[in-house]
Amino acid sequence: APGDVGLVTPRDFVHREAFTFRSGQTLPGFTLRYETYGGLNAARDNVIVICHALSGDHHCAGWHTPQDRKPGWWNNLIGAGKAVDTRRFFVVCANVLGGCQGSSGPSSLNAETGRPHGTTFPFVTIRDMVRAQKLLLDHLGVTGVHAVVGGSMGGMQALQFAIEYPRLVRRVLAMATTGRESAQAIAFNEVGRQAIMQDPAWNRGDYQRDGGPRVGLAIARMMAHITYVSDASMDRKFGRRKKDTAAPEAYTFDLQFEVESYLRHQGISFTDRFDANSYLYITRAMDYFDLAEDHGGHLANAFRGSATRFCLISFDTDWLYPTSESRNIVHALNASGAPVSFVELSAPFGHDSFLLDVPELDRVVDGFLKAGGQ
Amino acid sequence: APGDVGLVTPRDFVHREAFTFRSGQTLPGFTLRYETYGGLNAARDNVIVICHALSGDHHCAGWHTPQDRKPGWWNNLIGAGKAVDTRRFFVVCANVLGGCQGSSGPSSLNAETGRPHGTTFPFVTIRDMVRAQKLLLDHLGVTGVHAVVGGSMGGMQALQFAIEYPRLVRRVLAMATTGRESAQAIAFNEVGRQAIMQDPAWNRGDYQRDGGPRVGLAIARMMAHITYVSDASMDRKFGRRKKDTAAPEAYTFDLQFEVESYLRHQGISFTDRFDANSYLYITRAMDYFDLAEDHGGHLANAFRGSATRFCLISFDTDWLYPTSESRNIVHALNASGAPVSFVELSAPFGHDSFLLDVPELDRVVDGFLKAGGQ
Repeated sequence: APGDVGLVTPRDFVHREAFTFRSGQTLPGFTLRYETYGGLNAARDNVIVICHALSGDHHCAGWHTPQDRKPGWWNNLIGAGKAVDTRRFFVVCANVLGGCQGSSGPSSLNAETGRPHGTTFPFVTIRDMVRAQKLLLDHLGVTGVHAVVGGSMGGMQALQFAIEYPRLVRRVLAMATTGRESAQAIAFNEVGRQAIMQDPAWNRGDYQRDGGPRVGLAIARMMAHITYVSDASMDRKFGRRKKDTAAPEAYTFDLQFEVESYLRHQGISFTDRFDANSYLYITRAMDYFDLAEDHGGHLANAFRGSATRFCLISFDTDWLYPTSESRNIVHALNASGAPVSFVELSAPFGHDSFLLDVPELDRVVDGFLKAGGQ
Repeated sequence: APGDVGLVTPRDFVHREAFTFRSGQTLPGFTLRYETYGGLNAARDNVIVICHALSGDHHCAGWHTPQDRKPGWWNNLIGAGKAVDTRRFFVVCANVLGGCQGSSGPSSLNAETGRPHGTTFPFVTIRDMVRAQKLLLDHLGVTGVHAVVGGSMGGMQALQFAIEYPRLVRRVLAMATTGRESAQAIAFNEVGRQAIMQDPAWNRGDYQRDGGPRVGLAIARMMAHITYVSDASMDRKFGRRKKDTAAPEAYTFDLQFEVESYLRHQGISFTDRFDANSYLYITRAMDYFDLAEDHGGHLANAFRGSATRFCLISFDTDWLYPTSESRNIVHALNASGAPVSFVELSAPFGHDSFLLDVPELDRVVDGFLKAGGQ
């Protein structure tokens, strides 16, 4: 389509120095798989960092092969003339540390043992993810970041970026996110982890790549998927329709309602592309996320003295990270004197709205990235 | 406490005639375990039927032994001088057909085989539950029902009672409920069922009473419990507090946040008192519940010609069966010309508010049961 970035090739950034995690654990080095679109300018500061969510990856625009059925996950937002304009910006997106799409994580091989790290991989926090991405930016010679942009866990990283590197990051655009994982969100994460860890195939995290706790991971994903969409959108999309309209009066515990069939597909297809241990690590990183905790319990302290401009976007049907979560961040930013704009967009899709076609979202992203010059 | 019904003893109603379920399947007979409080009047029509929710039972008031730590689940509502006044009313509450607290269900013994029915038990619907309770009322010689009262799945039964037996039932008080299970609610039920059915110990429903898919059932319950409480109440009760305050900086996949510990306890203690197959049957009964479907797709038709008075109560923080669900029922009742009152109560606890101490709820129940004479 016009403006698409076309065929793209992921690259690997291999950091060959010891990396100490927030937990105190260390790795002798790590790999981040990443993609870039557009060109770096002479000042090396026209950079937009895209941060992905729990189940996302580095492939946020374009196609890997002409045969791909789907482009990258934010293709509608990124490209020539799009809201994240690759004619103007150099866009960088990396698979998070702890992930399973090419970056170092529990499923990547431990060079010392030749086996997957499994649960010997260090615990990961959002701050660790951000610090690893900063090392990638250093490797690319980046001197300034026009904006860090992300939704959900990507929004957490974007906020953390501004706190860790306030002089590097000129703008943060965080959508459908929170300044701290709520009790309810921790609870859903915990149920998902229990489904994985109680699956006998988990084997305390020690399994081969093709095996592992597929049943538990599928259950975790099915449940999580419900939290990503709105009640109303599920009713609109599936309602109470049954799959086999020829036998509407049948009684069974097998698949019968369309929503069951859809969820089952979501669960099973997820196990083909995601590592169960990574699911444990990344959900735990989200649980640990609390910007205020790191700053004496006061979120405003986290941003004090920041010169970064912020834009927060929430969606009115998002019940996982509802508007009140964004508003708390905005209040803290106001209290710390940081420039911030905030909009609650109306979209029917729930939390996943940030990933879907919401024209108003394009306009807000476009406007924020253009505002205030460099 | 003053007004409590004191020590109570459950009884068994054994129906010795064939019972045909909505599915067309039959049983040669069935048992309902039930309790009664107060006395039947001479006209045998001062009856209040209490219907329980998914995980409830027939023990809704009083104590079984002086050593019991907790009274029946609606003890705050039922007793002498309470909203459901046992000086005036004869209160009847039965464990639902398909349940596991003494009534016939998948865990009760099949007389022909001497083994639990398991998944050979007929599929159960809300209408089947109600028809079985009507046979109990007949057995007790009841000639009129002052009110059927229930919350959540109990509210479904209350509504169904009015539709099946419009001349018998003078009032229906349905709270925190819906006229049809939504796609989201079906989805949560399905994830819970998958957790149970994919647990190897489920063994296609064939397990001994002390065994069975405890892991899967605990996961199903943990997830369901999240849907019963509000985001805000979880934040107020647990927030992000950690269990071991001595090691707040520890990193682990074990229990760490208080909300995790609480959920784990909810899950495990549930497996001590609930049968996994019953969980499958009862959640499926809720999935199948759609009052409109049985009446040409028009909910108003379900209530046409009814002389029953209705009272609907929703709770502002209930996101499982939100106020909009009750409003849909009220609109249908209005369209059918039935007398109906409706109130959305403010309570912080989410769906479970109907089970908790909400003073305003007592007043609404009391007022509705007294209104309009007999």
